Amino acid sequence: MVAPREPHEPKQDRSRATRQRLLEATIDCLAELGWAAATVAVVAERAGVSRGAAQHHFPTREDLITAALEYMFDTRTMQSRTESAMLSAIAEGADRTRAVVISLVESYTSTIFKAALQVWTHAAADPALRERIVPLEAHFGRVSHRMAVEALGVDDSDPVTHHLVQATLDMARGLGLADVLTDDSARRKTIVAQWAATLHEALQGRPGR
Amino acid sequence: MVAPREPHEPKQDRSRATRQRLLEATIDCLAELGWAAATVAVVAERAGVSRGAAQHHFPTREDLITAALEYMFDTRTMQSRTESAMLSAIAEGADRTRAVVISLVESYTSTIFKAALQVWTHAAADPALRERIVPLEAHFGRVSHRMAVEALGVDDSDPVTHHLVQATLDMARGLGLADVLTDDSARRKTIVAQWAATLHEALQGRPGR
Repeated sequence: MVAPREPHEPKQDRSRATRQRLLEATIDCLAELGWAAATVAVVAERAGVSRGAAQHHFPTREDLITAALEYMFDTRTMQSRTESAMLSAIAEGADRTRAVVISLVESYTSTIFKAALQVWTHAAADPALRERIVPLEAHFGRVSHRMAVEALGVDDSDPVTHHLVQATLDMARGLGLADVLTDDSARRKTIVAQWAATLHEALQGRPGR
Repeated sequence: MVAPREPHEPKQDRSRATRQRLLEATIDCLAELGWAAATVAVVAERAGVSRGAAQHHFPTREDLITAALEYMFDTRTMQSRTESAMLSAIAEGADRTRAVVISLVESYTSTIFKAALQVWTHAAADPALRERIVPLEAHFGRVSHRMAVEALGVDDSDPVTHHLVQATLDMARGLGLADVLTDDSARRKTIVAQWAATLHEALQGRPGR
């Protein structure tokens, strides 16, 4: 008896899956091995893709890094949207504020943040790379801010509210950087709890609250 | 008439001055050119020191980077002490709190921060370098925290106070990172003003206030 043949996976789906595997491997390589080690060859090996196939998708390292940046940006935006929708379901109050702060801080301690940090730091001395990153980051900053505002259920046209949300994102970024060389999770937990309580207090009585 | 001879600069003073010039050039090279470019040869040229003299002081790049890290640490500690003493002279109140927050944030947007960021980011994927940095950073974190507590004139044994000071340092670190790819000074100014006001409010009625 002949086993039924597997239906053919359409070629473009296979190609898309390979591309995604390469991009995810790039993020892992950047976060774990650092900027210099994240080459097409190393990434291809990590992804279990032949070097030829990898080079078909990304002829140069620059192509790979640029695509990975866009992929990181899309993933962060999508995660941020999903989180925001989930957080809005929590009853308004101190619990929701805390959940929003925890969620923001988590996004800055992720593998994607650690990978992005390698790219940002390299871009500090590479004007061409910087030029590609800056608009993506500015856009992501606006998305994150808007998601935080929606999740908190506050009125961002109030300058105090606007600046407090910005400060929260800056604090989250600082906690992300503090987690790069050591596991900072125990200290971070206490800081996040305090920040959430102080933020909640400061937002009371602001417009929209 | 014979001109009076210049007094001899003692040899060890000259040597110390050369060493310091090399370390300061290392910081500038790291901040401006990035990790990969900060080699003994590039640093020697920037410092106006012969390559031979540079290699006499720092036989390997590792020696140079390690010494530069210690120099950054000492400079940051010294600056932090001087700032703290100056800030303590301001009358206690919202003005002093704002001055303390401004001073902390400035220390995270300095050339030294940008140079240190290059080393931290590289160390994320270099366990030997990380091992050398982590104790220095932990020590500097404690020094910064103590200086901030003294400058604010607060009682750090109160957990809320302790965590608010920590959160302020984390926010300052995040603002430092936000300034690496673009000049973030205009946005930063508004965040710092808001957080200083919120921090001041939150510290009212805490022990020591």
